[in-house]
Amino acid sequence: MKTIKINLAERSYKIHIGENLIFNDALFRDHTKDRQVAIITNETIKPIYLDCLIKTLDQSKQTLPIILKDGEKYKNKESLEIIYNELLENKFDRNSILIALGGGVIGDITGFAAATFMRGIDFIQVPTSLLAQVDSSVGGKTGINHALGKNMIGAFYQPKLVVIDINVLKTLPVPELSAGLAEVIKYGLIRDKDFFNWLEKSMLNIMNLESDFITEAIYRSCQNKAAVVSQDEFESKKGIRATLNLGHTFGHAIENAVGYGNWLHGEAVACGMTMAASMSTELGWLTLNEFDRIKLIIQSANLPINPPKIDQHHFLNLMMSDKKTLHGKINLILQKGIGKAIQTSDYPEEILLQTIQRQIF
Amino acid sequence: MKTIKINLAERSYKIHIGENLIFNDALFRDHTKDRQVAIITNETIKPIYLDCLIKTLDQSKQTLPIILKDGEKYKNKESLEIIYNELLENKFDRNSILIALGGGVIGDITGFAAATFMRGIDFIQVPTSLLAQVDSSVGGKTGINHALGKNMIGAFYQPKLVVIDINVLKTLPVPELSAGLAEVIKYGLIRDKDFFNWLEKSMLNIMNLESDFITEAIYRSCQNKAAVVSQDEFESKKGIRATLNLGHTFGHAIENAVGYGNWLHGEAVACGMTMAASMSTELGWLTLNEFDRIKLIIQSANLPINPPKIDQHHFLNLMMSDKKTLHGKINLILQKGIGKAIQTSDYPEEILLQTIQRQIF
Repeated sequence: MKTIKINLAERSYKIHIGENLIFNDALFRDHTKDRQVAIITNETIKPIYLDCLIKTLDQSKQTLPIILKDGEKYKNKESLEIIYNELLENKFDRNSILIALGGGVIGDITGFAAATFMRGIDFIQVPTSLLAQVDSSVGGKTGINHALGKNMIGAFYQPKLVVIDINVLKTLPVPELSAGLAEVIKYGLIRDKDFFNWLEKSMLNIMNLESDFITEAIYRSCQNKAAVVSQDEFESKKGIRATLNLGHTFGHAIENAVGYGNWLHGEAVACGMTMAASMSTELGWLTLNEFDRIKLIIQSANLPINPPKIDQHHFLNLMMSDKKTLHGKINLILQKGIGKAIQTSDYPEEILLQTIQRQIF
Repeated sequence: MKTIKINLAERSYKIHIGENLIFNDALFRDHTKDRQVAIITNETIKPIYLDCLIKTLDQSKQTLPIILKDGEKYKNKESLEIIYNELLENKFDRNSILIALGGGVIGDITGFAAATFMRGIDFIQVPTSLLAQVDSSVGGKTGINHALGKNMIGAFYQPKLVVIDINVLKTLPVPELSAGLAEVIKYGLIRDKDFFNWLEKSMLNIMNLESDFITEAIYRSCQNKAAVVSQDEFESKKGIRATLNLGHTFGHAIENAVGYGNWLHGEAVACGMTMAASMSTELGWLTLNEFDRIKLIIQSANLPINPPKIDQHHFLNLMMSDKKTLHGKINLILQKGIGKAIQTSDYPEEILLQTIQRQIF
């Protein structure tokens, strides 16, 4: 088992990563002893892991399961209300604790319920997707979608503990494993060249879920994200957390153009990172060899490097609506070599247009 | 104008108290310049103060008014949704700022909207009731009611600024002015003997809204509350903020027994403080003379000292359901002299019963 301490003053917490951790009652005990506990999960995860976790926690008392429907479209105020109702009907109080057992949607909504129930109660994350393990475990972003926009309602609120059991990845659909790897690769690209080099050699072992390799991949990802987030917990300083969005502006345009849910978020980000790398190469900031290495590692994780066919003006408009534009020019995250990313709007616009027009990278 | 700085690390803010402050654009400018501003108020306050405030803020740009219905029963998720919708439809972003123009309900709901819109945006309080000025201005409690309980959904979230214009009290119904004074007297009773002495001499001037007197009363109240709250911002340590609830356990039982809304909260608290003082006197912790002074100051603020007729067992049950009980005994805030309150369950039960039975104090 490996452990990371996330340092955020009195909001600090630990992330444990390893095998069979959802059976490790000692990890949870300090947080759940003599407290009312609710586990929030969804209909997909429930039959696989809910009973294990309840059994692990059980100290001759009841744990309240709250089962939501599975999917991004249920990350809304109706699901939140289900949680509030269950907690109130079961007399939960300010000393109670919630456990999020699921992927990013369950983590976000449970965190927000914890942030707002009786002005804030404790919660633990047990992320069951690779994306949630390497992304939502660190950063404190919680929330729900609103009919008028994604993630519009939410709070920065830190968990008390994150327990990442790598064995749960064995039941994760393979495309979702790959999608999570897009974010893993991203950390290498934006700020950790050594990690990138290691990923190049280790991708097959990681994809095969070899214990030491997947643990290391998650550990280094969380470490890298923590290093960025701890400089700007509430995302209040301009630009500090921005590099975490490498590939995301291109990616959101793709997700939007093909209709949300048709490409996995990680797939769109992978393609977006390729496009950002291509543009960086055109600008002379990456060598052709580096560009080839980036494409290769993305493909080795079974992720796409070529975008779907999208009209170039439509693509540009979608990018413009995703991000605030500075004097009409989109702020992009681009590479300056492998292991370094910058936020910039200082590029010739035709290079962006060429990138968008290109069908094959 | 008097100013208090509330020291809460990076969440520190200032409270300004004085005459005509809602016309003082300099106070608001630093917070509203070049930002989208929404003023949240209710149908009662709108015709009196909304236009003044918009005019004060106006810098050749639009301020968005959001008008809610007046009353505690509208402190709910439907009103919150109205705010979210207006903000999103008008393209408010993370740099926007909200202003709460109203009493406690408007302050609580606006604060919670600010806490949860796009994971937290800035807000300013312009409290228009004495209760909101001396109570909600300090403490960071925001939230809404849930069908299954009052204030069940909320967050601790600090404003960026509080502007208390004492002139708005001229349009406040007189019973609500008195209700606010119950909390003012409370600060003297729990921790500020000098303030209590001053209030005894000054109550008539305060009730007449003489500028220096009402300013001083609000100033000292906020100072006292700030001194308590700054020791325990998130109400996480047992007991530190508890003395702020002097009279509230008795008071909630009264409010509940007569039906919420039939007695004003401040009226019930005033009567509750009398009952707590009576009990403290029986316990030998207050002299009869001190008890008389307490009754007199409460009556001089036009507040009730005698409870409505309530069956004694019903009264006790209501008190038990309000607070957690320790080994079956209710934790009460009682006086040890004027200017000192303690939380205790160390009293003979028959003294509590005698107090509840008593009809005239």
